[in-house]
Amino acid sequence: MKPVPTLKWCENHLQLLDQRLLPAEEIFIQCKSVKDLAHAIKTLAVRGAPAIGIAAAYGAVTAALETSDTANFQEECNALLDVLASTRPTAVNLFHCLDIQRQILFSSPTKEIAIERLLTRAHELFEEDLEASKAMGRFGADLLPEGCTVLTHCNAGGLATSGLGTALSVIYEAHSRGILKQVFADETRPLLQGARLTAWELHRVGIPVKVLPDSAAASLLRTGEVDAVITGADRVAMNGDSANKIGTYPLALAAHESGVPFYIVAPTSTFDPKSATGFSIEIEERGREELAEMGTRKILPDGVRVFNPAFDVTPVKLITSIICEKGVISAPSEIEW
Amino acid sequence: MKPVPTLKWCENHLQLLDQRLLPAEEIFIQCKSVKDLAHAIKTLAVRGAPAIGIAAAYGAVTAALETSDTANFQEECNALLDVLASTRPTAVNLFHCLDIQRQILFSSPTKEIAIERLLTRAHELFEEDLEASKAMGRFGADLLPEGCTVLTHCNAGGLATSGLGTALSVIYEAHSRGILKQVFADETRPLLQGARLTAWELHRVGIPVKVLPDSAAASLLRTGEVDAVITGADRVAMNGDSANKIGTYPLALAAHESGVPFYIVAPTSTFDPKSATGFSIEIEERGREELAEMGTRKILPDGVRVFNPAFDVTPVKLITSIICEKGVISAPSEIEW
Repeated sequence: MKPVPTLKWCENHLQLLDQRLLPAEEIFIQCKSVKDLAHAIKTLAVRGAPAIGIAAAYGAVTAALETSDTANFQEECNALLDVLASTRPTAVNLFHCLDIQRQILFSSPTKEIAIERLLTRAHELFEEDLEASKAMGRFGADLLPEGCTVLTHCNAGGLATSGLGTALSVIYEAHSRGILKQVFADETRPLLQGARLTAWELHRVGIPVKVLPDSAAASLLRTGEVDAVITGADRVAMNGDSANKIGTYPLALAAHESGVPFYIVAPTSTFDPKSATGFSIEIEERGREELAEMGTRKILPDGVRVFNPAFDVTPVKLITSIICEKGVISAPSEIEW
Repeated sequence: MKPVPTLKWCENHLQLLDQRLLPAEEIFIQCKSVKDLAHAIKTLAVRGAPAIGIAAAYGAVTAALETSDTANFQEECNALLDVLASTRPTAVNLFHCLDIQRQILFSSPTKEIAIERLLTRAHELFEEDLEASKAMGRFGADLLPEGCTVLTHCNAGGLATSGLGTALSVIYEAHSRGILKQVFADETRPLLQGARLTAWELHRVGIPVKVLPDSAAASLLRTGEVDAVITGADRVAMNGDSANKIGTYPLALAAHESGVPFYIVAPTSTFDPKSATGFSIEIEERGREELAEMGTRKILPDGVRVFNPAFDVTPVKLITSIICEKGVISAPSEIEW
């Protein structure tokens, strides 16, 4: 399967496929400054925990390029990494990749050496992510039956990673093996990543995909038509509780009620030693504007406020297995983590 | 509480508040023919099971006005009632009100007498619905604690009835009694009746309302902040299973998981003797266009199909009580219906 061109280092800057414009337009944006990249991450031109992490790793190179060539370059660059760290609070990969680059920064004697080492490490993180995707795809596809129908939520695809995805890597692999019949994709309010991104990714390689309102998933699961629910995760706590796009928790509840297996696909870089359980994961709240308008049409009466969390936490008891690049963690609620 | 001007008979035709344009514009449309009214019902200018029923009852007068003044007037009019009956398949009130009017039609010796009797009965149905709303409001508010916070889905309000609503009548009554702190309204994809209509209705009378994506309700319920979930129903089966707007079933699952009471508020006209259980209720599937675009913006890639059911069925085991105009049916899963 050919990876999605989500992000690519071009000589001296990071190029991103602008996910805000999909599926209507396929436009690439060039992030030539830390400010550009921070804005791109904040406004979801690039999104998905692994993709944000890799983008930030390349952003560290951009940061180093922006610093003055003095003894202060490490502090200057470090301040720019703080700007990148402040873009999104929930995706642990962002902090993980920035920590890796910070160590490299502070062990590099000159700006030039730092740039070279940071770029090498960013490329490695990109390749490691691609390899991890492939491994997760194989482990996950092994769990699916012949002629399977699967349901996914949001976009845990090539667009959310270096190019193949987490949940969607499993779907790509099942398609390659010829065992996949149909994918259902939750549209995923409020930003519609399922309709705009997942349907776009799958449709472009000829995988049959139907889109549904998030609230219709429970009815679909009750029909018995779906063999497995497969989603990504933005952060996996140390007991297996998993934070993912808002709507994942009620989806897991509905899958449990209908006896459909619920799989989380997430690389170990998403596992967070600092989160003992899901309840200690900070949940980003996003703005009113995401619910207030539809195109140019006004949806919310003036003065009406919103509750708009970007993520929710699925308790481990509702998770059948967690698939990572090292293998399958079966019955994660029953093991010692 | 002053009723919402949802529908009103004006001399010789039915006037509807066009719900497709809310909250941006408050425009009334004049339905001067059965064709006008059928189009208004189909395109959701008027919606909500009781409001559709009453609109159809007035539509029978419009139908009688359209027939020729011959011995054939009953058959002609009956054919027009079939047109109204074909507009929406799930709302039982539609068929119920049309059956009432059909009986009157066939027992009326002349067109003139039919018109007079049909109009009288339509007015009665309107008034009965208003009285039923008030009774449901009182019975429901008795179940709510002082300083309560409630969550509702879609619009079971004045806009869905003759003017006061089912679920929202309970909320209006709780507000009048001074025991209501906060309402949360699911935005209710795909047509956003919660954001556009429920928030509009409540905000206009000063009730604090916050809107959330449907998929965020489960997280909200887990916080313990919500004292009760209150929704309407489009059809209640003979065992208590209830069909309502898509998303009601997963909401009931989430309420059950978090130990929050889940109340259905529905007049007995919504109870359907022909549906033994929820599984025999026909669920309307709606078009791709509801998910394909957002304003003028393209959301779905060309060629991608949808699954877009308008309703789902909440099994009676998840329903704490059903509130109708005659009283409260507590623990409906444990009684003989």
